[in-house]
Amino acid sequence: MIVHSVIFSLRHPAGSQAEADFLEAALVLATIPGVEDFERLRQVSPKNDYSYGFSMKFADAAAYQGYNDHPDHVAFVRDRWVPEVEKFLEIDYEAL
Amino acid sequence: MIVHSVIFSLRHPAGSQAEADFLEAALVLATIPGVEDFERLRQVSPKNDYSYGFSMKFADAAAYQGYNDHPDHVAFVRDRWVPEVEKFLEIDYEAL
Repeated sequence: MIVHSVIFSLRHPAGSQAEADFLEAALVLATIPGVEDFERLRQVSPKNDYSYGFSMKFADAAAYQGYNDHPDHVAFVRDRWVPEVEKFLEIDYEAL
Repeated sequence: MIVHSVIFSLRHPAGSQAEADFLEAALVLATIPGVEDFERLRQVSPKNDYSYGFSMKFADAAAYQGYNDHPDHVAFVRDRWVPEVEKFLEIDYEAL
């Protein structure tokens, strides 16, 4: 099991409609085969300056690769992520 | 519910006994009242250079504060975390 997450901030003002639109559009990622337990999260620690996170699980590396290559993921990254995300950090965890 | 995690790297060489000792010692955190679903994780994404993560859940801010203030947490941070951790980033998530 791989827990894939990305912590990020948007270029949009907090509370804006553009921000809400982005977070709504991201739900398409939850529909991609292989994605389990998709979550949209608010980052609340004052010890970093990211605002949001997405988290999901994959059964194995093949499922993860299938997600990365899926047209809906590719389109989301191209059309929404790249233009609207200010900065991000990807994290992949496996059990120790 | 708050998901508190920290992604980090150790000063110890990968695969060393000192590394194993640190990860073993961290299990004390799981015994602190209020800590739920404590996990020790290996960070495997090549897109960042952290090596490990700890993750835990708290029912609310009071439980989180109780953990922060608990003598076992304070001692772990002082005696193990500060001297042995090279770098880290704390992340706190709440449901969007």
